[in-house]
Amino acid sequence: MALADVTIIPLGTGTPSVSKYVAATIKALRRGKDIKYEITAMGTTIEGDLDRILAVVREMHEETFTQGVARVVTIIKIDDRRDKESSIGGKVESLKAVIARSVSDKAI
Amino acid sequence: MALADVTIIPLGTGTPSVSKYVAATIKALRRGKDIKYEITAMGTTIEGDLDRILAVVREMHEETFTQGVARVVTIIKIDDRRDKESSIGGKVESLKAVIARSVSDKAI
Amino acid sequence: MALADVTIIPLGTGTPSVSKYVAATIKALRRGKDIKYEITAMGTTIEGDLDRILAVVREMHEETFTQGVARVVTIIKIDDRRDKESSIGGKVESLKAVIARSVSDKAI
Amino acid sequence: MALADVTIIPLGTGTPSVSKYVAATIKALRRGKDIKYEITAMGTTIEGDLDRILAVVREMHEETFTQGVARVVTIIKIDDRRDKESSIGGKVESLKAVIARSVSDKAI
Repeated sequence: MALADVTIIPLGTGTPSVSKYVAATIKALRRGKDIKYEITAMGTTIEGDLDRILAVVREMHEETFTQGVARVVTIIKIDDRRDKESSIGGKVESLKAVIARSVSDKAI
Repeated sequence: MALADVTIIPLGTGTPSVSKYVAATIKALRRGKDIKYEITAMGTTIEGDLDRILAVVREMHEETFTQGVARVVTIIKIDDRRDKESSIGGKVESLKAVIARSVSDKAI
Repeated sequence: MALADVTIIPLGTGTPSVSKYVAATIKALRRGKDIKYEITAMGTTIEGDLDRILAVVREMHEETFTQGVARVVTIIKIDDRRDKESSIGGKVESLKAVIARSVSDKAI
Repeated sequence: MALADVTIIPLGTGTPSVSKYVAATIKALRRGKDIKYEITAMGTTIEGDLDRILAVVREMHEETFTQGVARVVTIIKIDDRRDKESSIGGKVESLKAVIARSVSDKAI
């Protein structure tokens, strides 16, 4: 299981608001039954098999052209760790635990 | 107010787990009183004045060297919109509303 | 034809120098006969059919695990323009021409 | 000395071609006397003191608003190595030498 963050940016849209295009990509993402996702303020985080993640990002990217956009910049950041299981929730919880521990170490 | 997503990657650490370094950057971030932040699975989202965001990211980056790392790759993605107010929570809510609306349009 | 920039970052390597891992990814890239590439100081730029680009980046990413790394962060930035042909050389030349023109406009 | 790659993406421009905006950012970059830069197909690579790099990227980003754009996405990737000197040319040459060596090793 890998994690990925994807940002899809339509260019030349005529208006600075691009939420309708981003919404269309999320609907493409929802068709992927075997992956989990989370919408964040700066992109969409996807959890799943890496080949499936890349396939679904490819569909999200293509969906933006279907919406009438002529140029799309898509940024994918993959975090692939093979020595232990990774998940969206697990990674955030694990980091918060390290932060909490290091704060209480300082207090001693 | 701008939004930014920052990912700080220490290289050559000897172990694939880098949470202690990331935790140190979050502590540097917490010293910035005039910015808001949210930890995500793939990075940290920061909301605030753009000059303050860049200053705090600079401190987070430097903190990683203080922890004994010799090479750091830092990725900053800035979303700066001047035609309306932006916030971490507002952006996610606004996108979710567009998604919900487009789903119900389809249902009609 | 799309353009993409790929950065492959091995984590936990024990030394800040990662050129042997990057060299291995370039050899994986060279096996892709139907794509062009250019090594830059900050990544590798690839030109070709988008599906082929994603397939070759997938191989580059996997090659890093074959080299014994347990965690890999891969960043892909795709620029896909459907209203006109794009190429690595053409894009740089076109931008330099716009810069030159705007400089001489100022001089008049 | 650090290296950074910057990509500045204006949103809502009405046309997929954004070279006039990118050209304006390059002119802002040229005013930075103490940094080196190279235009690539996917962004601009900058070499110099990290504080100077961030200051000049800040100016490039701001320049895009001066050109009448209401929303700008700017992506900065910093590679900061403190155990040895880094330069745009040196990094590419060093990587190419490792690739050449590993190819001739295979041939033996």
